[in-house]
Amino acid sequence: MLPESAPYCPEPLQDILEDVSNCIIPGLTHWQSPNFFAYFHANASTAGFFGEMLCSGFNVVGFNWISSPAATELESIVLDWMGKMLKLPSSFLFSGTGGGVLHGSTCEAAVCVLAAARDKALKELGGWENITKLVVYASDQAHFTFQKAAKLVGIPPSNFRLIETSFSTGFSLSPENLRFVIEDDIRSGLVPLFLCATIGTTPSGAVDPIAELGKVAMEFKLWLHIDAAYAGSGCICPELRHYLDGVELANSISMNPHKWFLTNMDCCCLWIKEPKLLVDSLSTDPEILRNNASKSKAVVDYKDWQIALSRRFRALKLWVVIRRHGLANLMCHIRSDIAMLNDSKHLWEKMRGLRS
Amino acid sequence: MLPESAPYCPEPLQDILEDVSNCIIPGLTHWQSPNFFAYFHANASTAGFFGEMLCSGFNVVGFNWISSPAATELESIVLDWMGKMLKLPSSFLFSGTGGGVLHGSTCEAAVCVLAAARDKALKELGGWENITKLVVYASDQAHFTFQKAAKLVGIPPSNFRLIETSFSTGFSLSPENLRFVIEDDIRSGLVPLFLCATIGTTPSGAVDPIAELGKVAMEFKLWLHIDAAYAGSGCICPELRHYLDGVELANSISMNPHKWFLTNMDCCCLWIKEPKLLVDSLSTDPEILRNNASKSKAVVDYKDWQIALSRRFRALKLWVVIRRHGLANLMCHIRSDIAMLNDSKHLWEKMRGLRS
Repeated sequence: MLPESAPYCPEPLQDILEDVSNCIIPGLTHWQSPNFFAYFHANASTAGFFGEMLCSGFNVVGFNWISSPAATELESIVLDWMGKMLKLPSSFLFSGTGGGVLHGSTCEAAVCVLAAARDKALKELGGWENITKLVVYASDQAHFTFQKAAKLVGIPPSNFRLIETSFSTGFSLSPENLRFVIEDDIRSGLVPLFLCATIGTTPSGAVDPIAELGKVAMEFKLWLHIDAAYAGSGCICPELRHYLDGVELANSISMNPHKWFLTNMDCCCLWIKEPKLLVDSLSTDPEILRNNASKSKAVVDYKDWQIALSRRFRALKLWVVIRRHGLANLMCHIRSDIAMLNDSKHLWEKMRGLRS
Repeated sequence: MLPESAPYCPEPLQDILEDVSNCIIPGLTHWQSPNFFAYFHANASTAGFFGEMLCSGFNVVGFNWISSPAATELESIVLDWMGKMLKLPSSFLFSGTGGGVLHGSTCEAAVCVLAAARDKALKELGGWENITKLVVYASDQAHFTFQKAAKLVGIPPSNFRLIETSFSTGFSLSPENLRFVIEDDIRSGLVPLFLCATIGTTPSGAVDPIAELGKVAMEFKLWLHIDAAYAGSGCICPELRHYLDGVELANSISMNPHKWFLTNMDCCCLWIKEPKLLVDSLSTDPEILRNNASKSKAVVDYKDWQIALSRRFRALKLWVVIRRHGLANLMCHIRSDIAMLNDSKHLWEKMRGLRS
């Protein structure tokens, strides 16, 4: 439907819009439609859209603090806001001893925390050749993105343990099974590195028991990451917050406001207890970026908290979403979705009753 | 200036906008200002902004073809348009035997091609433990993001060779010096893996001699990647296209329309001759994403061409930029910038003459 080469002459906006209507829209899956129930449902909001417009209009590139200070400052503030809404311990907040950053996706966040954990371990083990000994653990319900991320950072795919779960534990990761697998790896001369626990797995919505897994992680000095990509948003409601109990034992936690928090794609919050470990692994110090603010170590340079150098001013949209709705209405949004789920469960059981 | 916690009640848009004016804008560096001359200058456009609005409004998540077919189709079309404007050989185009994808940044593209090259080599070498033997080459003028990317994919930092350049060659990478370093590495039992050549380096605007470097790369079976992040846009002008001569010898090439092509952040084109190698390294096949279209292998699933699973519909903005300006005006834009550069050079020389 579209030509094979770019036009030589400029085209009127009207023609482009007509092609959007005639060629693009009919071929899109409408994720924002009220009839769309796959993956994560209609989650864009006017507030999120407005924040994206501001971001796109300013078009600043906040790789480090000096390159556009307010972009970094607002991101740090919003990450603390979000962390406080989730009642994260202050060890994850800038107002405490940790900090947060916005990534585009869980996979990017996973690559960064895995690289941080890897580099800390390789330093302790005394050589890069030990990379083939590092082992990563997750349940067989965990998001496959962690396998991709572990392979990306050079951990052999054969060192990724997908621990089996079962119906009897609601498909959550059993701390006993984890311990069993870890001890087996240690006997084989391998080095347990990283555990991913999930709040709300993709296939089954399972919740791993963070508090108990945290104890195992501490015992074996594993980096514990909590992936709360989807369900994490729900934890702003006091009656759902218990799913995060034990989060104080984790090293890092991520959740995606672009899934269930009315924030347009893409937006993934990552909090970390020891930002220094991220920076140790990801920092670069080229001459073109040196400046007194960075040298003073009094500012955050987010380029050292993520994969890329360039970064969009994503914090704007999350900031507008939170202010425009307020915690009160954000909790209403979560509760209304859960009520719909419960309604449909009742309907389903009624229908099953009628059939049998 | 902003509160320490999120508001409980919703706030009017007017209040948020006032805070944008009073707290955010004064703390931003205005990358779009005509007075901004650092990094890459004012590059946003109304067309790019319009494309971002469409992207943010549709808010589709095109991780694979089936999740929103037009998003994948348009991206493939636009990458072919852009590739044809740069007169890339058909081996990099979907209409030929290759293909292209949009990433957010060069670093993300670098991570993906390095992982593809790494996994191909590890397969040939017969084991993951050989990862510590792999060596990456670039000039000391190359973007530091390649060092970060190589470390991210698990290649020991001590295996990154920054080959010295000098004023006498305009700070371009010398094929002789490259060969010398490679031969030395081979004698030490290492395995040359990857060469990054740059069209327009960040510190000095140097251009590496692609054609000659390509011959060395072929001789030693290196993966040759061309980083044309900034200057690449210029190569749409016939009088500047010669900088890409020899590109047919490369395995992959990237350029960032968000730098000099009127496209709002973020937008990085990556073309690759053997997309299969990217897919071999980055693909995942979880049950939740299986579908007949993917199984048929007749479609592109971009999740296997990038780090993340989720992805924004970035192609829209590049498509609108190209159509709204047309190749003719895009060339004018490049030429007008170069004319300004030449004017300022003359002015500088005049001033130097006056002073001495």
